Amino acid sequence: MKNKRIYLDHASSRPVLKEVFNFAKPYLMKKYGNPSSLYNLGLESQKALEEAREKIRFFINAENSKNIIFTDNATESNNIAIRGTAIRNLNDGKEIISSSIEHMSVINPMKDLQKNGWTYNQIPVDNFGFINYDKLNELLSKKTIVTSIMYANNEIGTIQPIKKISEIVHDKGKYLHVDASAAIGYLPVDVQRDDIDLLTFSSNDIYGPRGAGILYIKPGVKLQSIMPGGGQERGIKSGTENIFSIAGMGEASKIIKNEIKSESERLTIIRNKLIKEISKIDRAFLTGHPKKRLPGHVSFIFNNIEGESILLNMDMYNIQIATGSACSHKTLEPSHVLLEIGLKHEEAHGSMVMTLGKSNNIDQIPLIVKAVNDTVERLRKLSPL
Amino acid sequence: MKNKRIYLDHASSRPVLKEVFNFAKPYLMKKYGNPSSLYNLGLESQKALEEAREKIRFFINAENSKNIIFTDNATESNNIAIRGTAIRNLNDGKEIISSSIEHMSVINPMKDLQKNGWTYNQIPVDNFGFINYDKLNELLSKKTIVTSIMYANNEIGTIQPIKKISEIVHDKGKYLHVDASAAIGYLPVDVQRDDIDLLTFSSNDIYGPRGAGILYIKPGVKLQSIMPGGGQERGIKSGTENIFSIAGMGEASKIIKNEIKSESERLTIIRNKLIKEISKIDRAFLTGHPKKRLPGHVSFIFNNIEGESILLNMDMYNIQIATGSACSHKTLEPSHVLLEIGLKHEEAHGSMVMTLGKSNNIDQIPLIVKAVNDTVERLRKLSPL
Repeated sequence: MKNKRIYLDHASSRPVLKEVFNFAKPYLMKKYGNPSSLYNLGLESQKALEEAREKIRFFINAENSKNIIFTDNATESNNIAIRGTAIRNLNDGKEIISSSIEHMSVINPMKDLQKNGWTYNQIPVDNFGFINYDKLNELLSKKTIVTSIMYANNEIGTIQPIKKISEIVHDKGKYLHVDASAAIGYLPVDVQRDDIDLLTFSSNDIYGPRGAGILYIKPGVKLQSIMPGGGQERGIKSGTENIFSIAGMGEASKIIKNEIKSESERLTIIRNKLIKEISKIDRAFLTGHPKKRLPGHVSFIFNNIEGESILLNMDMYNIQIATGSACSHKTLEPSHVLLEIGLKHEEAHGSMVMTLGKSNNIDQIPLIVKAVNDTVERLRKLSPL
Repeated sequence: MKNKRIYLDHASSRPVLKEVFNFAKPYLMKKYGNPSSLYNLGLESQKALEEAREKIRFFINAENSKNIIFTDNATESNNIAIRGTAIRNLNDGKEIISSSIEHMSVINPMKDLQKNGWTYNQIPVDNFGFINYDKLNELLSKKTIVTSIMYANNEIGTIQPIKKISEIVHDKGKYLHVDASAAIGYLPVDVQRDDIDLLTFSSNDIYGPRGAGILYIKPGVKLQSIMPGGGQERGIKSGTENIFSIAGMGEASKIIKNEIKSESERLTIIRNKLIKEISKIDRAFLTGHPKKRLPGHVSFIFNNIEGESILLNMDMYNIQIATGSACSHKTLEPSHVLLEIGLKHEEAHGSMVMTLGKSNNIDQIPLIVKAVNDTVERLRKLSPL
């Protein structure tokens, strides 16, 4: 008999919450008006769009709901934030910066700009994954248009001190963009408290349907569209709005905001217990910082075994985990994040990442720990190393 | 008591089909795996993704399912098709062409390229909306990388002879891109029969959920990504795939393919009857071609009244129609399409567009005709002209 699923890969994908689904469902088959249409059916969609915008504004404490732009997902938000500001402000400078452990949807647009004449610098990180503040300070200049630093890392869980980084960036440079995809829903994101210029996350990061993401744009930030067309979303992101996903994202943000504190405390307890138990395994090493990490984040490397084999073995226990970058499992390259925190290639190959969420509870811990123990033992017996 | 809704704005937005919803629903809350994940839950999503791709391939008779790229919507597909080919092939030439009546998601990316040094020419159209073939032939050169001509126009319904246009374009130029958003589901689109290089439409155009669109890319076409990131969809369109919308789009294409012939015949009968009756109204003029038009498309201008007033009046009868561009109702500018077919500004302001679909039937004709008659009569009484 198959065990009940224990899903531990929330950074990669999440089920839509039942309440979110029920809230958004009417926009598929009943309230299907285009929000640009002037008849009542269209105005209903327009209203749903603006209500969702207001919920997101409240969720991240933005100045005004008009500072929230709906996109299709975080990849698109990251692309708009980086290319949209770099191209719009090129007369003020052509320098861009990111940390060395950003998601590829930050690194690749920056590399594209580099090919087109921009100067792109990566800030190295220490063994825990914290960026090098001195190096950041050194590389920043008044020509630095956009600096992109993620709120927390999806592979090692490390939380950056965004407020401190914001101060360093604004001392010399122009805009700070923060990819909050891994942090949102776990940490109380507040764009005004941390003085963030651009912020990104997607609906599914907070258990909403895919097909929506947001880009927060602080008042005064100059940015141009990279998706021209019908002129929706203040002309920044054209295309008829996906009201089902947008309404769902808004409702998800409302639900998550209400429970973020208690849920993060609950997940921190499970996380700490899992880290404690898994650390007992021979040649198992925690990656990222032991304390300054996401509440639901457990990441290890195991010497002499392959992450892919761990993943497949764990799936036989009906436990889903990740290894390496959540979005590039198919590549044979080890995760750039693990290499950047100083691991060797062969070490980086043996990584296991667990990202916890609503379906997880304290009773699952013994099953998870046993599955990891058995898996590591079995694979090491098979390993030629 | 409110009348039962008669929705006549399918070009603007469509309800998702019940069967499509039922098919795709599991991917929201149950089968939520990321298709890049290697465990079974991820492989299930991967399978759904490839099955949808195969359904779309079959729908438009593409050579291979790998020639179908999933995007978020037609606006994105148009942007990728145009900017992706123009930038990738700039060493072969920097000339681009479109008709003068394309959607803004074709015209605006081309204007953006024009600002960056490309030569952009628009092909004029005649009073019916057919492009000027001589002018196209004259403007084409071997430096023309991409020529974008829509299959049929959303505002006036005119169907371009795509096969003939394809021959003219390929005689001198490189790629033909066809925006099939308005035609798909009404006409049997076949990319091989018509020798089309790039083709665009969105899920909602065929009663699928928003959040998915496709770009067909003929084998051999050179195109680069404009959305770099995690490398999904052959590296052309990064971002975790929206399986709910993609699976829904695939299923919708299967359903629509099976009934396209009978449904188009059915809608042609209703269309012809509506055109005949509305033509009897004083100073009412059909726009577009009377015969070579989309099966479900009825478009008129009424002298001396405002399209927006027609729309709002018709909504009081619970009948939803469009006026001007489906995606830019909020602008006060008259539709560029109506100006391009030779109408004066004041004429273009009095436009009414009906786009029929599955919910419409022959019994609705008298109600629609009476509402139009009453509306036009009432508005003309109020008009100072």
